[in-house]
Amino acid sequence: MLGKDLLGLCDASAEDIMLILDTAVNMKKLLTQNLKKLPHLQGRTVTTLFYENSTRTRVSFELAAKYLGAGTVNVSASSSSVQKGETLIDTGKTLDAMKNDVIVIRHPMGGAPHLLAKNVRASVINAGDGMNEHPTQALLDLFTMREKFGSVKGLKVAILGDIKHSRVAKSNLFGLTKLGAKVYMYAPATLIPQGMERMGAVMAKSRREAIAGADVVMGLRIQLERQQGGLFPSLSEYNRFYGVDGSELKFAAPEHIVMHPGPVNRGVELTSSVIDGDSSKITEQVLNGVAVRMALLFLLARQNKEAAK
Amino acid sequence: MLGKDLLGLCDASAEDIMLILDTAVNMKKLLTQNLKKLPHLQGRTVTTLFYENSTRTRVSFELAAKYLGAGTVNVSASSSSVQKGETLIDTGKTLDAMKNDVIVIRHPMGGAPHLLAKNVRASVINAGDGMNEHPTQALLDLFTMREKFGSVKGLKVAILGDIKHSRVAKSNLFGLTKLGAKVYMYAPATLIPQGMERMGAVMAKSRREAIAGADVVMGLRIQLERQQGGLFPSLSEYNRFYGVDGSELKFAAPEHIVMHPGPVNRGVELTSSVIDGDSSKITEQVLNGVAVRMALLFLLARQNKEAAK
Amino acid sequence: MLGKDLLGLCDASAEDIMLILDTAVNMKKLLTQNLKKLPHLQGRTVTTLFYENSTRTRVSFELAAKYLGAGTVNVSASSSSVQKGETLIDTGKTLDAMKNDVIVIRHPMGGAPHLLAKNVRASVINAGDGMNEHPTQALLDLFTMREKFGSVKGLKVAILGDIKHSRVAKSNLFGLTKLGAKVYMYAPATLIPQGMERMGAVMAKSRREAIAGADVVMGLRIQLERQQGGLFPSLSEYNRFYGVDGSELKFAAPEHIVMHPGPVNRGVELTSSVIDGDSSKITEQVLNGVAVRMALLFLLARQNKEAAK
Repeated sequence: MLGKDLLGLCDASAEDIMLILDTAVNMKKLLTQNLKKLPHLQGRTVTTLFYENSTRTRVSFELAAKYLGAGTVNVSASSSSVQKGETLIDTGKTLDAMKNDVIVIRHPMGGAPHLLAKNVRASVINAGDGMNEHPTQALLDLFTMREKFGSVKGLKVAILGDIKHSRVAKSNLFGLTKLGAKVYMYAPATLIPQGMERMGAVMAKSRREAIAGADVVMGLRIQLERQQGGLFPSLSEYNRFYGVDGSELKFAAPEHIVMHPGPVNRGVELTSSVIDGDSSKITEQVLNGVAVRMALLFLLARQNKEAAK
Repeated sequence: MLGKDLLGLCDASAEDIMLILDTAVNMKKLLTQNLKKLPHLQGRTVTTLFYENSTRTRVSFELAAKYLGAGTVNVSASSSSVQKGETLIDTGKTLDAMKNDVIVIRHPMGGAPHLLAKNVRASVINAGDGMNEHPTQALLDLFTMREKFGSVKGLKVAILGDIKHSRVAKSNLFGLTKLGAKVYMYAPATLIPQGMERMGAVMAKSRREAIAGADVVMGLRIQLERQQGGLFPSLSEYNRFYGVDGSELKFAAPEHIVMHPGPVNRGVELTSSVIDGDSSKITEQVLNGVAVRMALLFLLARQNKEAAK
Repeated sequence: MLGKDLLGLCDASAEDIMLILDTAVNMKKLLTQNLKKLPHLQGRTVTTLFYENSTRTRVSFELAAKYLGAGTVNVSASSSSVQKGETLIDTGKTLDAMKNDVIVIRHPMGGAPHLLAKNVRASVINAGDGMNEHPTQALLDLFTMREKFGSVKGLKVAILGDIKHSRVAKSNLFGLTKLGAKVYMYAPATLIPQGMERMGAVMAKSRREAIAGADVVMGLRIQLERQQGGLFPSLSEYNRFYGVDGSELKFAAPEHIVMHPGPVNRGVELTSSVIDGDSSKITEQVLNGVAVRMALLFLLARQNKEAAK
């Protein structure tokens, strides 16, 4: 049983995750039949509250809501009362009082969605909070893997890149281990956070070790906007030692797929031939993202309707 | 009978105000039953034209319009033709020619909505013009008082804070005196404009005089963004001498309510215990704002339909 | 038969143009009857992808889509992944994977819409690309002329102003010559591009030669934002030698009309008495723009439905 909110996969059960993925299968069927005017969320309102820019995620949620018949409102930090010094809780209570049903929040500080969720009646969906979690990205990744391999259980998933700044890596690690995959991570020493092993990851000693036999090879975006100290390897060094190209992929499992949360820095995390190659699921991930978000919005709305009884 | 536009409460009759408040009662009932997909404005378009940022007011109008079935379009100054030197009238005529039904305008200069209204066929709603008026804020404030006390007539309303820069104070003064309330104002000497007495306000000599026996204590936002000359008392001085805390409220009427147009500078205009206390109506005001704006949009649309016959 | 996209009038046939104009006649009838909730594009999504600001064009497309029942999403460069270094093709593929039906793109570089169109399944409409084309502006101009004169064939059209930076001038030249009008252009020597004669224009030696006997006098916006080299005549010089006022218009045909794509720099390209005079079609052009864009969206949607069979 899903709760009121989706704040992260750390606290989600495997059953919750499977429920969302199963529901998303049906949503994807509707999308591929171009059925994009469903009545399930008519009269509901979904507000995106983004304290960081992200066209990709914002538009994905906005379309998912519209396809289900919900109204959408966008609030971005640059034009919001935040500039007038309003606290997050006060902003949330205002949106709540206006009868919003769902608040999709992206925030530069980890934990902000949790604070918001405690203070509003509306459902809160975490669309990325600092270096903490980005659960809907991980859900669409899980969906993509399950669609390809039938099950996530037993897969070897290699995650390469800027693990330290990546909420995507963390949410994927939580989700993948709950569904029984083995997660190998590889990154420059400067970009490995503490404690990944305790969360279930294998920290690979080499790119080859991570990729060897992997069913899924996932590149992570270099968060250029987050690197300011100069410790980072240069982009060309990064590509040479940590990037993924065709010659490295020869060591992956024969039926492997390549994934990336996007937008990709072409030629850095992945070469163009890999991005556009047959094993790449990067564009499919985008479509799956809409399906997963539709499923989540649908389930939270149903859940809240039952809770209100 | 409402006219084509709502530009301010200065020129509104008590009957107009009561009509909007009465209609808003029904709108609020629908909102609290979570009925947010009404057909009254289907096929109508409401455009917000904001030359100043205000998420709170913009989202309130946008949701009010959507809940009634209208389409909404947002135009903000930062992305508008204004930057290309277009005049307000030309911008208005353009929006008008595109068959917008209602233009909701916020503008840094007093009188801008009036100029616009004379030059377009669409209904114009003033969502705040310079230091002049903010009539829908005052309407929601009146609604909130009437809901609590049954009637506005005979209430003592204390308005404390930056009266000088406050279009909210002026619109409330017009509305409250028309409905028979007594308005006491108190502010630092640097923040009192000329002529408030002539408009019907009692200028209190002390915070205590304003609050004593008041049914409504309304804090006004310190417009930090408007203070540039350095004449202003510091924030801590402001709080000490002009802010409202629990000890001051002991002198108000036993059943008093506390109001604020938001966003509040916590600890400046009001202490947190007052903001979040039992007598606070600040969150309720937000909900009432949606109801009042729904009522106004509904009435203007009906009015224009009849005028077109 | 229209194709998947509308990228410019250079490659459009006279039949395509006439089909769009004929369809727009019906759309305008609906608009003037205030019928703005049509079902033709229900379940479709139109995304505006604007790498340059343009409220006027963006709102016109957004309303045209909404009036036909489509959902709309706005993406502007300032908040988009572009800032994160994503390529145009990758952005397009992302929007495509999210099941957008139409992408309306404005871009500072000529050819960007063509590159996008080749890489997405969605219909692409060019809403202005660098100094290349702005086909929907030309279509609404053609519509306005045809509505006034019954036919574009044989009209003398004078286009005055910043021809060099004007995609409007180029799209109009293509469209007008295809429909059999004679196009006279006049501009300061610094603002005439090469090769206009080869595309069918007559380069007038004087303002008088351009305007004499003209059925249509079209002023072009001075693109102040594009002039950086200092070669340009000053604004007052421009107005004196290249602007249009009432005394010049005496030499035009008796039933002439005055047009301008807007926003006008009042007193520069045209005097206020001309802008607001009886022969001015500037506000009518705005309404016609919505009608033409509705027609185009409708036709592309129908076309793609048939192509999918």
